[in-house]
This record gives sequence, C-alpha cells and structure tokens, in this order.
Amino acid sequence: MNDFTYYNPTKIEFGKGKENNIGAYIKASGIQKILLVYGGGSIKKTGLYERIITSLKKSNIEFEELSGVVSNPLLSKVNEGIALAKNHGIQAVLGVGGGSVADSAKSIAAGAKYDGDVWDFFINKAKIADALPVFTVMTLSATASEMNGNAVIINDETKQKYSIASVLVNPKISIINPELMATVSQDYLAYSAVDIIAHSIEVYFTATVHPHFNSRIVESIIKTVMETTEILIKNPADYDARAEFAWTAIQALNGLTPAGTGGGSFPNHMIEHALSALYNVPHGAGLAVVIPAWMKWYKANNIAQFQRFAKEIFNTQDADEGIIKLENWFAKIGAPVTLAQLNIPREGITALATNANALASVWGLGDFYTQEVIAEILKKA
Amino acid sequence: MNDFTYYNPTKIEFGKGKENNIGAYIKASGIQKILLVYGGGSIKKTGLYERIITSLKKSNIEFEELSGVVSNPLLSKVNEGIALAKNHGIQAVLGVGGGSVADSAKSIAAGAKYDGDVWDFFINKAKIADALPVFTVMTLSATASEMNGNAVIINDETKQKYSIASVLVNPKISIINPELMATVSQDYLAYSAVDIIAHSIEVYFTATVHPHFNSRIVESIIKTVMETTEILIKNPADYDARAEFAWTAIQALNGLTPAGTGGGSFPNHMIEHALSALYNVPHGAGLAVVIPAWMKWYKANNIAQFQRFAKEIFNTQDADEGIIKLENWFAKIGAPVTLAQLNIPREGITALATNANALASVWGLGDFYTQEVIAEILKKA
Repeated sequence: MNDFTYYNPTKIEFGKGKENNIGAYIKASGIQKILLVYGGGSIKKTGLYERIITSLKKSNIEFEELSGVVSNPLLSKVNEGIALAKNHGIQAVLGVGGGSVADSAKSIAAGAKYDGDVWDFFINKAKIADALPVFTVMTLSATASEMNGNAVIINDETKQKYSIASVLVNPKISIINPELMATVSQDYLAYSAVDIIAHSIEVYFTATVHPHFNSRIVESIIKTVMETTEILIKNPADYDARAEFAWTAIQALNGLTPAGTGGGSFPNHMIEHALSALYNVPHGAGLAVVIPAWMKWYKANNIAQFQRFAKEIFNTQDADEGIIKLENWFAKIGAPVTLAQLNIPREGITALATNANALASVWGLGDFYTQEVIAEILKKA
Repeated sequence: MNDFTYYNPTKIEFGKGKENNIGAYIKASGIQKILLVYGGGSIKKTGLYERIITSLKKSNIEFEELSGVVSNPLLSKVNEGIALAKNHGIQAVLGVGGGSVADSAKSIAAGAKYDGDVWDFFINKAKIADALPVFTVMTLSATASEMNGNAVIINDETKQKYSIASVLVNPKISIINPELMATVSQDYLAYSAVDIIAHSIEVYFTATVHPHFNSRIVESIIKTVMETTEILIKNPADYDARAEFAWTAIQALNGLTPAGTGGGSFPNHMIEHALSALYNVPHGAGLAVVIPAWMKWYKANNIAQFQRFAKEIFNTQDADEGIIKLENWFAKIGAPVTLAQLNIPREGITALATNANALASVWGLGDFYTQEVIAEILKKA
C-alpha cells in the first residue's frame, strides 16, 4: 500500500426536500451574497428554481445569476461568472444543476480570487491558492463533482478540455435530493452510469498497487451502478434505486477508491476529452466508446486485474470476455460503443489523437500515450 | 434509502514516517502550545516519543504532557488533562497511542472548552458546543477514533462506560503509519480485528433499511479484516497487510457504512461496555464474547440479512452456520468466546445486565434491551 493523504471536507446533505434549506445552510456559513449558477432553464420548468430563490430570500441571501451553462461547460461562461463575482462583491458560488454546473461554479470560485487568467490553473501555469466557497444542489449524478475538488472546462477558443483539482474548490455543502433526478432521460442515465464506471476503473486498472480493499470498493460501486441503472431504466420513479445510484456515483470519485494505490492515471477520460472538445459529444457517451477500446489495448499491461474484473463483475475467468460483456452492457443500456454511432468519421482520428496527446502531455502521460498509441486505440472503436 | 448527513473533515496522513511531520502540521494550523497525551510509556521504549518531541521542537510547538492513559480510559485521567489544559493555555490536544489515548484526547478537548463537568456530555446532560482542535498519531488500529467524533470513557466512580459523539472532536489531522503498529501483540491484533468486525456488523444487522451498496462495503471491510489478520498472525512484519488492516479499520466507523441506512443501533458495544466497566476486560475481547451470543439471540429479527452475511462472508446459505463460523474464527485467531474465558462468573450476569440496561436507557434502547433480555443474551455466552 502506498502513502497517501485523504481529506474530503465536503458536507453531504442527502435526502428529500433538502434543497429547501439551502438558504439556511449558506447563511450559517456567514455568507450574505452569492452567485447562482445554472444551466439552460430546466430548473425553471421543474419549479426547482423557485424553491431555491424562496429559500435564499427567506434567509436574506442576496444573489446575482449566471444561466446558460452547457453540458460541456465553456471557459467563456466561466469568465462571465468571474466578472460578475468580481464586480458584485460575491462571497460564494451556488451551482444548481449537474456536473457541468458544479464544475463551472468551482472554476468561477477559483477565478474570482485570482488576478490572472483562470485558464492558468488548467494548464498548470498557476496553482489555486484561494477560492470563494462553493455550494451545490445537484440535479444529475455522475461526475461526483459534488464531493471533490475537480472541475473540467472546455476552452472554446483553443478547443482544449482540461481540468483543475484543488480541495479549495471542494463544495462546502452539497445537497443531493434523488427526487430532483427522477426526470433525467434514459440516454443521460446511461451516460451517467458509464461515467461512474469510468471513474471506478481508471485507477483500478492503472494503479501501481492493488490493495484488495480498494478493488472490493470499486467492484461494489460497479455492481451497484449496474444494478440500479437496470432498475431505473424499467422504473425511473424508483426512489431507492435513484438514491443508491446517486450516493454510489459520489463514492466513485471522492478520493476513497485511489487511496493507497499510488493513484493511477485517467487515460479514458483523457481520450474522451478530445471527443467532447472536438465533436461536443456527451462525456458519458464518449467514454462508452473509448472504454472498451482502451481496455482491449491496455489489458496486457495488467492481465491479473482484468481477470479479476471479469470474474467479480461478470463471473467469467476470461479477461477478454469481461471486456466484451461490459461493452455489451453499455450497448444494452443505450450507450454508443463505436465512433460511428457518435457520427465521428474515421478521418477524424488524427485530429482527436493530436488533441488527446496534448492533454496527455499536460498530465505527464505524453510519452506513454503518444499520438500513434491514441490513434491505435481509437481505431479499435 | 433514508435521508442522511455525511460530514467527516478529518485529514488522514497515511504512510511511513509521517509522524515526523506532526510539528509542522500543528504549526500550519496556527497552534503554538499543545497537550501531549499518551499511555503507559511504550512510546518511549519504541523511540516514537523522542521523534514526536523532536518534531514539535523543530516547529517551536510548546507542550505539556499527560501520560498514563490506560486501555479502558478513565474519567479521572481526562479530568487531569482538562485541568492541565485550562491552567496552561493549551490550544490543541495531541494523542499519541491507540483508541484509548485518542478518546481521552477528544474528551479533554471538549472538557477544556466547557465550564461544567465533562461527564455531562456523556450522560446527555449537555451538548458539546466547542472544543480544542485534536490531532492524533496512532499506534494501534481498531476503534477508528482517528477519523470520527466518538470517544468512550469509563467513569471510575460510577463504573459507567459511556460515550460522546461530535464532529467538533473529529481529529483535524490523524497520522497513520502502519510501521508503528508492527509490534502489537497477537492478542491485541485479534481484539482489534473483532472490534472492527463489531463496528461493521452493528448497523449492518440492526438498520432500518439495507441498501446493497452499504452491505457490500461492510462485507468488503469484513473480508479484508479477516484476510489481513490471518496474514499478520503469520507474519507481523507484513507492511501491506498492516496498512490495509489500518485503513479498513477506519472505514468501519467513519460514517460511511451507516449513511442512508437509518443508522441502526450498537447493542454489542452496549453490552460489552458493562464487561469492560465491571471486569476491565479488553474491549475487543469482551466483544468477541458478546457478538456470537447476541447474533444467536437477534437473528430472527432480520433473518434475510443474517443469511446474506452467511453467504457473503462464509459461503454458506445457513444463517446459524454463519454465526458459528464467525465464532470459530474468533476462537481461531485467539479471541475468547465465552464469559468463562474472561473469568467472569455466571453470578456476575445480573450486575452486568443492570449496568448494560442503564446504558441502553441513555441510548434510548432501554425498552428493547431490558435487564432480562441482556441477561438472556449473556447466558448464551
């Protein structure tokens, strides 16, 4: 087992109606004025927006608004939020929505306390030293952004989908009410399931060491996500399945699964970021295409763990069969598994490989994941 | 899945040599003077004491000392620490030792910020509203005190073994260096294993609801503890097994396993506290005696979960066989499984039942766990 630091100070308020307390939670933190960040307005249709505003007003929390965050969130929108925060004496950022909104809220929180260009943090030119407190009310479970310090943003000019990681942008409080997630489409449920599985397997397969406990936690997460996804496809109103799905999503990327493993890398995310950046595909859909291809390419590097995966998740001794069964499961729940299904032409692979390799270099993986290797993986998709 | 709040702000610094940074960690928290709490002096024999002092001095941290904490920690010692803290302008409490030392450090931290009698917190007469920051360097893994807000203390006058729970006494930073645990005797390794299993199964069997994810986490903990205990009995120097044992111990009682289950109760701990209070037996030894007896008595209340336990842990369909196999495993690793092995006479059961029922009343379980019921359970032991 490797040395590690585990620190996750986010408080999770989980359950029905908890969003109605958001004003009180913010007030208890000594905050009087916030920036409210959300997406395309679905929270207005569902009535959530009204409930949030009512709760804020009840606690005398003033607020400015930033709407229009899109599902692959953009730097231009983040910069808009930073300007609002700086010009209006904003003391905290509240994101109401899914992972993109949470990631935008975190990026704004970091940028609002920085004199330079917030993109500096994404390209490792500067390190986050301070940030406004972040709060979230989640309407979608997948990224675990609600309980970590990560944020992923697309630079709309350079077409780079890059990330930050700092405990300073861990939400202070995240509200998870599974009822708010009941209207998610089956497509997005499937993409979310794939994203959670991706978070689980990246370190599971690429880590330096594999403590049994960590492997067992990852397998517990994957089994639970698969089980609850199948229940939710049949019955989207199943509260318990929705709740377990939401809580399991958080555990997949809140620091628990890599602790002691040496950390591993995130090649599937790295390659997928190119797909999202250049073709604007949903993150989970892109991952569903990348993962089976990457697994086929990578398996020889860690055959024992691929055999373990096959046995624990699909009850088969054969590593290849484990990969095929996961691919089939992605297809079964309605996720794409080929580039063609994403309408990405074979000729696009070169540009994707170049884009992904640039990110690999930022992450210190550029020598292993060369353009040629990434192209080879994508050709399997 | 029930509503819940999850919040655990303890930072874990896990790995070799991390205790040498304790001074720097404390200084980074803006603290200049601490109370150093430890046990009977084994940390002096191992050289750990010297390394801690060196680290404190290097960071210019002043300190007072409180030694002599015993393995069922006493209120009188806690009060001694509170007086020291109040009289010497102590700003934080550092516990170096096992769970008893950590629990004493937390109790001192709470008492130092309270004008009344610290025992008020244990009998629910007052609620902890403030506490000094707590730091720990652990030399034994079992109680998970290093990552929770719990503390258990024996009132030496009234012979009550009672507890507190508040996030205000969660350690700010806990240092877990598995190397410091390599000299633990086989007896105490066995008692620790039993304690970890006890923490895992209390809520697993008594909760209102049983999300699959929570059950899977508990089963992952139990499997890992059993596996690593067996390795450590054969080879106490196995670092990886020691490290997994230590990290798994923490997960068993840091708030993860009960989240969403409705919480359950802690009847095995409740009954064992009477054994420790009246006969001063090691906590884990007492639990090893109580658990199989309680399981036999309770199983009809939740037969499905007992069957699940039997299947997942011991690969048998039969609930009774699961209990017997656990009892046999306790015996195999060297833990006692009868009151006789603890030198507790049958005539002692009445006084034990009275003591445990008094605690049951404090915990709101007095109607279910009457003196008669507790005596009936103890007779099975």
